[in-house]
Parts: sequence; structure tokens; C-alpha cells
Amino acid sequence: MLSFDDYRTIINEHLTDFIPETDSKAAVLSESMKYSLRVGGKRLRPALLLASCDFAGGDIGQALPYACSLEYIHTYSLIHDDLPAMDNDDLRRGKPTNHKVYGEDIAILAGDGLLNTAAEVMTGEVLRHSGDLIGMTRHASAAHEIMSRAGIRGMIGGQTADVKGEYMEANADLVRFIELHKTADLLTAPVRAGLMLAGADDEMLNDFTSYALNIGVAFQVLDDILDFVGDEKLIGKKVGKDQDLGKCNYVCVHGLEAAMEELHRLTSEAKLSLTKYGDDASFFISLADQLENREY
Amino acid sequence: MLSFDDYRTIINEHLTDFIPETDSKAAVLSESMKYSLRVGGKRLRPALLLASCDFAGGDIGQALPYACSLEYIHTYSLIHDDLPAMDNDDLRRGKPTNHKVYGEDIAILAGDGLLNTAAEVMTGEVLRHSGDLIGMTRHASAAHEIMSRAGIRGMIGGQTADVKGEYMEANADLVRFIELHKTADLLTAPVRAGLMLAGADDEMLNDFTSYALNIGVAFQVLDDILDFVGDEKLIGKKVGKDQDLGKCNYVCVHGLEAAMEELHRLTSEAKLSLTKYGDDASFFISLADQLENREY
Repeated sequence: MLSFDDYRTIINEHLTDFIPETDSKAAVLSESMKYSLRVGGKRLRPALLLASCDFAGGDIGQALPYACSLEYIHTYSLIHDDLPAMDNDDLRRGKPTNHKVYGEDIAILAGDGLLNTAAEVMTGEVLRHSGDLIGMTRHASAAHEIMSRAGIRGMIGGQTADVKGEYMEANADLVRFIELHKTADLLTAPVRAGLMLAGADDEMLNDFTSYALNIGVAFQVLDDILDFVGDEKLIGKKVGKDQDLGKCNYVCVHGLEAAMEELHRLTSEAKLSLTKYGDDASFFISLADQLENREY
Repeated sequence: MLSFDDYRTIINEHLTDFIPETDSKAAVLSESMKYSLRVGGKRLRPALLLASCDFAGGDIGQALPYACSLEYIHTYSLIHDDLPAMDNDDLRRGKPTNHKVYGEDIAILAGDGLLNTAAEVMTGEVLRHSGDLIGMTRHASAAHEIMSRAGIRGMIGGQTADVKGEYMEANADLVRFIELHKTADLLTAPVRAGLMLAGADDEMLNDFTSYALNIGVAFQVLDDILDFVGDEKLIGKKVGKDQDLGKCNYVCVHGLEAAMEELHRLTSEAKLSLTKYGDDASFFISLADQLENREY
């Protein structure tokens, strides 16, 4: 297996390779899509997809279109989330948000374009394996896994609860629902899709699903902590937004100390899921530790 | 083959069957998606998909999830198009637009949800045929065809040119690009996908692609004519919007008389593409005539 930085380098080198060429009459569309893709980011989701496929003995070249598609989905969700009608953010990763650069109309279309492109790329990959029933089934499983966890029972559902949470009584149930779906689903999708592409068995899929859901929820708990105590310069966007918007998050419901404990508990739980794999899983163990200690 | 009304009845009966159940915490999301789906519409695109599959000897039960997915894509594009940052329409088919009922934030998410659901449903159908290489290939072809024509080289690209057309010099090239991509691609996708699901050969695919592109461009030319001379009550939304927005359309570039001639020429061209199929293609011939004479 490669290092996290190596997987990230592969992603950054190929991230826009799968965006179809557009006619000059629609050039601003692909330009704005690529702008948001290139603004940066940890590339956590696509790196997890490559690493999971690699771990299970798969071909990371075949996993690359899925890894990039997942980053397209993540990026579209940020573009739409930043819109004035949603979180109304001017900055993302320290740079102007898509609608500040291209206008709201193009930002809406760029988001739609990234989501559609993800589905277009993945169905194209399934079709490219049409001579091979096993390959095609693995590819279709990965594509369906990603679209399901990105969908209305997954990320979009979590996002809806988050938006509407502003108007609901903050409570522990709602906070966990938002963590699981707004965030953990899109960290679980790459792990499962990567394993599926490599043809991993159900036992491995279950162990890694538990790992991914736990680091996914932990990721959102830490985001909530950082929104409370984080460094605006490091994070690259305004902090304290949740409180300003009256949003329901882990810290406001359980307090800061409980949030720190929960972050640690979830990270330990994630690592425990992979005990049986020993040193082979060290990539995933140290990633969990790094995520627990991130400052942005 | 059935009548257009029969295909439409099947669509209307099953239109929301493929929308996944959401948790009560995100109930407003599926509610708003279903609101826009049920506001009505001609169901032209899904009916074309069922009819094309039926024509080529396919199973319309297998085509139904694709037909509904296409209507989800069409509906999401209308929800996003109606947003204040885009066309800012309060009415669609005589009813309040999605954002007027649910707010802009939910309207954005409902559009995302419908697009994602289309991809989720179709990749699920591909996967459901994983025991059968020919079936799976046909399903993957249909899914990829729909996602491609809906995408940034298709509908979203056309939509971008339309939005940006407000700021460009109106010209014949741009108008044709918008007609082809904003409109004709999403009328061509169902015809090709329906035939692909039935395993039609390349000759039939080519003939029907020519038919569909021609009725698709004709459809937009007539929309432009109706925006100029149509009856607001029949159409169910404000007319004269293109002129108000300074948008580039066929009528403003070529004049009303030339638009009527072009509508007739395109309809004849469409029908000519299917001459060799004689009476077997009468469904498609009379549909072309009905579309030429529609008043809304």
C-alpha cells in the first residue's frame, strides 16, 4: 500500500481527467466545476477509496474514476451548501466560494454538473466492462453504493435534516442522524466501493463499514468542536456559524467535554473494528489517529 | 403498442414508486420532490421511453424505472431552473414552484435529490441484472445514455448556454446549441435508452435518434413561439419571459414566420426518418404531428 500523501497526489494529478470536454458555449460551466475541484481539500474520500481497493488487492487504476467521482459529489455538495439560500458562505478553504466567483446561477449548474458527471463517469465505467460479468457486477456495486450513500437516504437526507435542524428542537437523536448521513455516509461509501471493486468478501466489508461509520461520525463531531474552538485561519472559513444559525450540533447538545470524549470513543471503536487485520491495516489505524488530531 | 395516454397512465401510476423512503427527520425532502413530480406535465419523455422499448419488442416493465428516472431528471431541472437565481418563476404548470412552497434551500436539495435518485435507481437496476451479461449491458447502456444526455455536454451544458445567452449576442449558432442540448438531448435520451433496453440494432438506433433530435429541436422552437404568442392560462406560466430576460431564442433571431416554417420542416424531417417502418411507426408519426400542433 502507498502512503496517504501518495494516494492524494494521484487524485490531484487526475482529478479533472474525467470531466467531459464542453463546447465553448458552455465553457464557463466546466471552468467553474474545475475551479471548485482545484480549490483544494484533504482528498480524504477519494484517498480512502483508492486505499480500500488497494488493501483488498484491487487495481487502483480501475478505482480512480470512482475516487474522482466521489470527490465530484463531495464538491457539488459544498458548492450548493455555500449558496446564499443555504449556509451563505463567502469563503471555502480560504478562497471565494463558487457563487462569489461565477454567480449563483452558474454555481447551481456547476453543482448539478458535478453530480451528473459522477453518475455519467461511473455508468460509463460499468459499461466499459461489459465483456466481463464479474467485473461489471463489481463496478455496478461500487457505482450503486456511492449513489445510494450520496442520496436522499444518505448525504442529501442528512443535509436536509441539518438545514431544517435550525428550526427544530436540538436533540441527541437529530444530531446523530445528521452526523451519520450528512457526513459518515460519504466517508463510508469510498471504503465500501473500494473494497467492492476489489471483490472483497462480506466479512471484510462489514469490518470496514464499522470502521468507516465510526471515523465518519467522529469527523463530524470534530467539525462541531472546531466550529466552537477552531482557528478560522487554519480552517479557511468562518467559525461559530452553527451557533449563529442556531444549528443543532454535538457540542451545543452535549457540551464540549462530552464531545471530546465521544471523538476519542468513536476513534477507538473504529480502530477496534480492524484488530484482526493487524499491521496490514496500519494505514487505516494511523489515518484514524490523524483525523482525531486534525486542527482543520 | 399502447396509446400515448396509456403510457402516460402507467407513468402517473408509478411515478413515485422508485423514490426511496426517507427518515421522518428528512421527510420534507421526499415531500417536496413528490410535490414537483405530481404537479403534472405531459410525461412526454417517460412515455417516449416506454413506447420506444415497446416498439423494439422490449419489456416495458423493465423500462419503467428508467422512464421514471428520466422524469426525475426533467423535474429536477425545472425546480433548479425556477429558482430566483435562475429564471425566478413563481408558477409552473399553473401551480406554485417548489421554492415558493418549500423555500429555496429545500428546493435546491429536492433538485439534487431527484437527480441523485435517478442515478441511484438506474445503477440499482443494472446491478439487479448481475446474473445476465446481455441484460446487464443493455441496462448499463441505457443508464449511461440518460446520464450523458442529461450532463454537461447535454442538458446542463444547454442550460448554461441559455443562462449565459442573456449576456451574449443572440445568434443562430447559439440558438441551435441551446435547442439541441437544453431540450433535444432529453427527448433523444428516452428514445435511445428505450431501444437499448430492448436490444435494438444500430440501424434502428440511428433512425430513431434522427427522429428524436428533430422533434426535440422542434419542441424548443415551438416553446419559443409560444413564449411569444402563447396563452398564459393554457401554458400555466408567464409568457414573454425570454424577451423580458433578453434571452436568445429562435423567434428573436429569425422572426416568427421563419420559426413556424422551421417547426414544420423539423417535424417533416423527423417523420421522414421513420418512413421505412411504415405503419409500425404510426405512434411516433402521430406524436410528431401532435407536438407540432400543441398549444402548451
